[in-house]
Amino acid sequence: MNVQIRQLATADADFDTSFQHVLHWSEATDHAIEQRVTDILGDVRTRGDAAVLEYTERFDGLKAASVAEFEIPRGELQAALASLPPVRRQALEAAADRVRDYHQRQLEVTGRSWSYRDADGTLLGQKVTPLDRVGIYVPGGKAQYPSSVLMNAIPAKVAGVGEIIMVVPTPGGERNAMVLAAAAVAGVDRAFTLGGAQAVGALAYGTATVPAVDKITGPGNAYVASAKRRVFGKVGIDMIAGPSEILVLADGTTPPDWVAMDLFSQAEHDEMAQSILLCPDAAYIAQVREAIDRLLPAMPRHEVIRASLEGRGALILTRSMEEACEISNRIAPEHLEVSSTDPHRWEPLLRHAGAIFLGAFTSESLGDYCAGPNHVLPTSGTARFSSPLGVYDFQKRSSLIEVSEAGAQKLGTIAAELAYSEGLQAHARAAELRLKDLTK
Amino acid sequence: MNVQIRQLATADADFDTSFQHVLHWSEATDHAIEQRVTDILGDVRTRGDAAVLEYTERFDGLKAASVAEFEIPRGELQAALASLPPVRRQALEAAADRVRDYHQRQLEVTGRSWSYRDADGTLLGQKVTPLDRVGIYVPGGKAQYPSSVLMNAIPAKVAGVGEIIMVVPTPGGERNAMVLAAAAVAGVDRAFTLGGAQAVGALAYGTATVPAVDKITGPGNAYVASAKRRVFGKVGIDMIAGPSEILVLADGTTPPDWVAMDLFSQAEHDEMAQSILLCPDAAYIAQVREAIDRLLPAMPRHEVIRASLEGRGALILTRSMEEACEISNRIAPEHLEVSSTDPHRWEPLLRHAGAIFLGAFTSESLGDYCAGPNHVLPTSGTARFSSPLGVYDFQKRSSLIEVSEAGAQKLGTIAAELAYSEGLQAHARAAELRLKDLTK
Repeated sequence: MNVQIRQLATADADFDTSFQHVLHWSEATDHAIEQRVTDILGDVRTRGDAAVLEYTERFDGLKAASVAEFEIPRGELQAALASLPPVRRQALEAAADRVRDYHQRQLEVTGRSWSYRDADGTLLGQKVTPLDRVGIYVPGGKAQYPSSVLMNAIPAKVAGVGEIIMVVPTPGGERNAMVLAAAAVAGVDRAFTLGGAQAVGALAYGTATVPAVDKITGPGNAYVASAKRRVFGKVGIDMIAGPSEILVLADGTTPPDWVAMDLFSQAEHDEMAQSILLCPDAAYIAQVREAIDRLLPAMPRHEVIRASLEGRGALILTRSMEEACEISNRIAPEHLEVSSTDPHRWEPLLRHAGAIFLGAFTSESLGDYCAGPNHVLPTSGTARFSSPLGVYDFQKRSSLIEVSEAGAQKLGTIAAELAYSEGLQAHARAAELRLKDLTK
Repeated sequence: MNVQIRQLATADADFDTSFQHVLHWSEATDHAIEQRVTDILGDVRTRGDAAVLEYTERFDGLKAASVAEFEIPRGELQAALASLPPVRRQALEAAADRVRDYHQRQLEVTGRSWSYRDADGTLLGQKVTPLDRVGIYVPGGKAQYPSSVLMNAIPAKVAGVGEIIMVVPTPGGERNAMVLAAAAVAGVDRAFTLGGAQAVGALAYGTATVPAVDKITGPGNAYVASAKRRVFGKVGIDMIAGPSEILVLADGTTPPDWVAMDLFSQAEHDEMAQSILLCPDAAYIAQVREAIDRLLPAMPRHEVIRASLEGRGALILTRSMEEACEISNRIAPEHLEVSSTDPHRWEPLLRHAGAIFLGAFTSESLGDYCAGPNHVLPTSGTARFSSPLGVYDFQKRSSLIEVSEAGAQKLGTIAAELAYSEGLQAHARAAELRLKDLTK
């Protein structure tokens, strides 16, 4: 049966309504989960290791006498790497190298301390320093994503984070060799087979065995997301990800099979993933539709892909590429492919996107694994105000100010005037005490 | 009566316990406030202007026929500026100039797009763009802080934000000339006399009159903080600030009166503000204590200062400056003064702080108003993982990837191998379709 993917045209009278319907997505708050997570976090905070042991036995079926038994020795991470078939190991290491190179560049360009002195000799600047210790949450169970280990741990490592702690649940005790190997390649310092809200709690508050971290990053299920939200403030967190999305902006010159497969590659993640094509060429849209129907049956994950495309996908005919760019800006997609022979013509028009993939050869999947940039990207329109995970997420800045004696004379008068206007007299006096004519 | 400020010494047997006691601060969650805020936000989201009108009448005593009446025309902002005494106006403009210069430098050094091509011709980089529209919350009522307008609006303006919307509650209709003048100087585009959770809701969801923004920054009371937490995800927010803190690390060479006044300038904010002195010289600590007792009675806000110093302040004798630096890192203070003749000896040892003020002439108050760096800084130890407000908070990044045909050959093999290992066959096929030997 052909895929019943929604088809819209911006020229339709009811386009805005239909388009809003396509975009609509809201994460329901599950109060039962919220309450469970609150309880688990409180328990881990109070009882530490004992609580972590109990929850890990209950949720993952892992029994142990101490949390220390859940630590995976560095040797085991290295052994997992050594155990891989050479081709797979080489792929993992090649991807890690490229991701490392890109983030190293990011560090060099935007992540260094800077300062300058003004005419008075006053020094102003920012000192950029890495976080001391971060925790990386890696989902376990059915789907295991070694690429996620690389994308979270490598920017932290490049930033110079002192210690990287990985947690990964292993329900039933099953450890994924690729995930452990990725941890070895990425330079994870310590790893624990822990998961769920209890792992987030252990990282946020620390236990006798699991050290407290300064920030927790990485994806997880609803319990993990809720726990991260709750510990925010005690520690930093990365964004809470919604369903993954791709928007393909096509001028009709890319082989339709390529575009169809790119839409599939997003749709295969899960049924809530969203794949949208924007194109000013109706005949091309028909070709992509034909490719979708022809290629789908051979895909192992065809059921998920179909459900995603039919539930949340759309093929949208636009009046022009310019209009397609405008609509893309309204969506602010996580992944944006500009599948065009002239991508640099359109790129300047694109204001909001997690990652922009330029030209027909740049399939999203290359970026997901090994082009170099991070695959952790803002979802659900949050690219309007947030950014890919990067070295900057594992650094923080401190302002540096050294006012010279001459500078204090000039600045002191200004500061005192403004402080008095705000009724903060001690602020004013502290500035005035540094004025020469008043102190002598 | 002398100020009963706590005095500790790191050599004390019970130092760690006493020190933890000094640092302890936890924001209680007020469930009544949480519920009220949830209701208000839901109401503003559903009923828009009508709800905003009702809440503004109820909470601020302002009656109007439409929300448009709450908009302050640009002309009124300019008129407020023109109405200021010349000295005050000059101080405001001089401060704005310095804050603008510093943030301009920040933009130049760390806020520009960058890209490079690797040997295959593949382009990698990041495009940095300003947010389209931001909302700035300015507290109203008794305490009015024009400096806060400058510190929030100027970085947004320097970042290139398209439109800056200010909201400021005016209970009873009283408008503060300095706040309006600061909005004019900082380049605020539109201003509304709205406040509380209803203003946050209007900015986050948009109403017929108030445009929806992409991010909301600025301090507020418990209702505002709760509302910001709740709209986070729909829009970006800055940090939720705790009480303000200063840590003075003194080598005993700064006039004790200066240090005492710097401690006061933090303490005068409110009773929960925290002022701590770390010093290896017991005689100097005694001099500062004497200065505190001598200077306090003349301070207009002496009651607040006393309550703050006695409730949350501390004078701590350390074994050395090195130990003082270590303790400072445990605190991760918002404001850190290195009051020493050799501040650059100690600065490299200081890993966590919102802003570091180097040398005796650099009173915190100069930084609060006009040195140039931002005065919105991470509080309550969050300097371990977060940064001063900056141009970067009003920008977002998009990864740029343009894989060349040659690059697609190399990357495709790697990506496909990893995608198969994760069971994501469409990802693998999308990469493989770009391989020449398979596509021909």
